[in-house]
Amino acid sequence: MPGAPQPPSERRWVARVRALAEPRARRAERACFVEGIRAVLAAEEAGLPVEAVLLCPESLRSEAAWDAVARLERHGVPRVDLPARRFAQLSDMDNPVGLAAVVGWAPAALDALDPPPGALVVIAEDVGDAGNLGTLLRTADGAGAAAVVVAGSGADPSHRRCLRASLGTAFRLPVALAGEGPRAVSWARARGMAVVATSAHAERAHWGVDYRPPLALVVGSEERGLRPETAAACDLAVRIPMWGTASSLNVAVATGVLLYEVRRAWGGG
Amino acid sequence: MPGAPQPPSERRWVARVRALAEPRARRAERACFVEGIRAVLAAEEAGLPVEAVLLCPESLRSEAAWDAVARLERHGVPRVDLPARRFAQLSDMDNPVGLAAVVGWAPAALDALDPPPGALVVIAEDVGDAGNLGTLLRTADGAGAAAVVVAGSGADPSHRRCLRASLGTAFRLPVALAGEGPRAVSWARARGMAVVATSAHAERAHWGVDYRPPLALVVGSEERGLRPETAAACDLAVRIPMWGTASSLNVAVATGVLLYEVRRAWGGG
Repeated sequence: MPGAPQPPSERRWVARVRALAEPRARRAERACFVEGIRAVLAAEEAGLPVEAVLLCPESLRSEAAWDAVARLERHGVPRVDLPARRFAQLSDMDNPVGLAAVVGWAPAALDALDPPPGALVVIAEDVGDAGNLGTLLRTADGAGAAAVVVAGSGADPSHRRCLRASLGTAFRLPVALAGEGPRAVSWARARGMAVVATSAHAERAHWGVDYRPPLALVVGSEERGLRPETAAACDLAVRIPMWGTASSLNVAVATGVLLYEVRRAWGGG
Repeated sequence: MPGAPQPPSERRWVARVRALAEPRARRAERACFVEGIRAVLAAEEAGLPVEAVLLCPESLRSEAAWDAVARLERHGVPRVDLPARRFAQLSDMDNPVGLAAVVGWAPAALDALDPPPGALVVIAEDVGDAGNLGTLLRTADGAGAAAVVVAGSGADPSHRRCLRASLGTAFRLPVALAGEGPRAVSWARARGMAVVATSAHAERAHWGVDYRPPLALVVGSEERGLRPETAAACDLAVRIPMWGTASSLNVAVATGVLLYEVRRAWGGG
């Protein structure tokens, strides 16, 4: 069933979305593709340049989403309507909500990050799963971290699954790429931060540690933990006590447990 | 490219895996399909009946996994080898590791759960995403919860994505289905537990609460939080303070933050 011929603007944006599946293209053009109502709204709220909004009118139910589409159109953002079948081809949701966008966003360079005095920062090394990285960003944002530094060879923060899992907090929270883990640790040190590593093998539990601000928490890969050279560069290592059979928590869960323990130690909110 | 004809035992097990995609079939037969090395190893370690092990010899690299396959074969478990293409059709991993199994497991009935004195229990209502539910189970296991009670109309604990995200902790941690949330709360009450709800609108932060054992923590849907009738049945509501733009944490992250705060209050580990 070939259906109606595809209009040229539709063809152009679908091609652009496909091109942005490549990390290299996202980096070179400082642009990304994001799907989901909250993530698109977050891009708009963050004042990011929206190149185009892609929607499936027959699927999109949220009134807030339709209002956002109208605002974007008023600001001259191209609107590309797709039939459900074509939208589903672009979507990676089980039940596509019918809203997506091409957004001018990319993670910052490490040197461009300038956390305020007394900041709490997360350094995430080798987090391989883009969804986990996005949930980690959402968690860091929720716990009031000033920035997340992404190190090592893990998932790309501009991956669509990361952006969606972050609920768009990636667009607000400063997120930077550090290259190798020790470089991120040096960066934090140079800004006066104490740098605390997490390790399943640390002697010290994460409770009752004197977490003085400013502070950087370093979390590692879901599979292998921190690289030895990164762990060695830190001031202190802590472990989250484990009672069960699995040897570790999911990395975003571990980050949440640590961040909220620091927040509690700092006097709560 | 039709390839070699499919052997009958292969055909039979592939059909069985497909049938177990239906929650009703899993419930009726008290069986599930699980993919991934850690989850299959966990089923074996938990002493569950393994109906068949499905593997892709050309993909499976882990020595521990091959050892487990050999042990299962010695115990008379049928082994079904699949070519990579057929294994990929059954898999929902981006890069299939080549190991899966049909396992005799289903969540327990609520009345069959018998947590020990002083237990910490999680009640999870309407958790819609199977991966989130699995991560929640892994988190509860890690924090030493005695059981997880799944209430409302969320994901099924025997969903393959839940089992995989749980890293197989679902097979060890008692997991029960409660039906409606208030029934789970009554069950906990009848066992002397204090029942603490989490809500974004609670006045009280989750810190500094007198969490006396035995205790049930109640967490709600990612989208809407707890149902009003479930929240009303609890003794107390707490909120996790939020600093960022998103209104909540991921439900598994929130569960981890709460469980570890209770553990800290109980004297740590």
